[in-house]
Amino acid sequence: MDLLEKRILTDGEVYPGNILKVGSFLNHQLDITLLNEMGKEFKRLFSDCEVTKILTIEASGIAIASVTAQFFACPVLFAKKSASANLRPSVYKAPIHSYTHGNDYTAVVEKAFLTSEDKVLIIDDFLANGEALNGLIELCRQAGAEVVGCGIAIEKVFQGGGNKLRDKGVRVESLAMIETMENETVVFQK
Amino acid sequence: MDLLEKRILTDGEVYPGNILKVGSFLNHQLDITLLNEMGKEFKRLFSDCEVTKILTIEASGIAIASVTAQFFACPVLFAKKSASANLRPSVYKAPIHSYTHGNDYTAVVEKAFLTSEDKVLIIDDFLANGEALNGLIELCRQAGAEVVGCGIAIEKVFQGGGNKLRDKGVRVESLAMIETMENETVVFQK
Repeated sequence: MDLLEKRILTDGEVYPGNILKVGSFLNHQLDITLLNEMGKEFKRLFSDCEVTKILTIEASGIAIASVTAQFFACPVLFAKKSASANLRPSVYKAPIHSYTHGNDYTAVVEKAFLTSEDKVLIIDDFLANGEALNGLIELCRQAGAEVVGCGIAIEKVFQGGGNKLRDKGVRVESLAMIETMENETVVFQK
Repeated sequence: MDLLEKRILTDGEVYPGNILKVGSFLNHQLDITLLNEMGKEFKRLFSDCEVTKILTIEASGIAIASVTAQFFACPVLFAKKSASANLRPSVYKAPIHSYTHGNDYTAVVEKAFLTSEDKVLIIDDFLANGEALNGLIELCRQAGAEVVGCGIAIEKVFQGGGNKLRDKGVRVESLAMIETMENETVVFQK
């Protein structure tokens, strides 16, 4: 998606260690006009799926998921992050390791809100190693819900998570795919 | 706002200790159609303010703020919650005590995204004791930004936070104002 790639090049900040900061428009301050265009693009990409629910994870996935849901006319469900694995029986839970923050947490959703009737589009801002996505897919598996695909804003292709999921047959569509970030320069996969 | 009050009566769950759960439509699963109507109502209420930025706090304020921002054609900034008070000098920070969760945290925004040019509408899902709102107002004070008002989904009037802010001259508009929740029955202020 040209609009997002251009915005990453103009307003993204690259730091050593393959760190890309997009806090000025995507995950701290939010450019809602851009998010709207991203939502339209996700609708175009997944228009063949009868999406009944958009699933994301707090906090930075919520804005993209909420704006996108308007185009699918479906509710959003956001998984909560819990430091505890010892939770009420009314929830589905999946352990997730964050390479970014170097910690472990548990992704949690209430069972009442994710069911075997659901066709789920998973939305998130970043895809790197795929840990968060794997956790969200696991929540859907527990619920017996069908994952119709994953819509990602920015995929760091070189970190491999996206292609591992595609190899498993998961449909992953990323609006900006970063092939490399060597020498602090963003190169997109074409 | 009738639509929200009715929804609270039909889908809200009241528990002892003045606990109101609205996770089926407002802060876990999100009814985006309802959020859109709430956004329109905030626009009607604050149409006389030249809002340049909507400020909220993760996680449950983000969806309402993002959908609302479409009607103001302005960006959203969400404060992050940090367990540490020891933070980078590039951020504004305000301590907040959560009565709901019985803990303390620090609300943080990057200085670059909140400036003395900003006219800020603060949006959040709940107003009870007013601790979170006071923290967000404090972030604006540090930035020299003007707070034009606070738009709240559900105010627990009996917990006093909203009226304390109004007494200080802060404009607070709540879409559903709960006067009491005695005997697990929600009574709205008319």
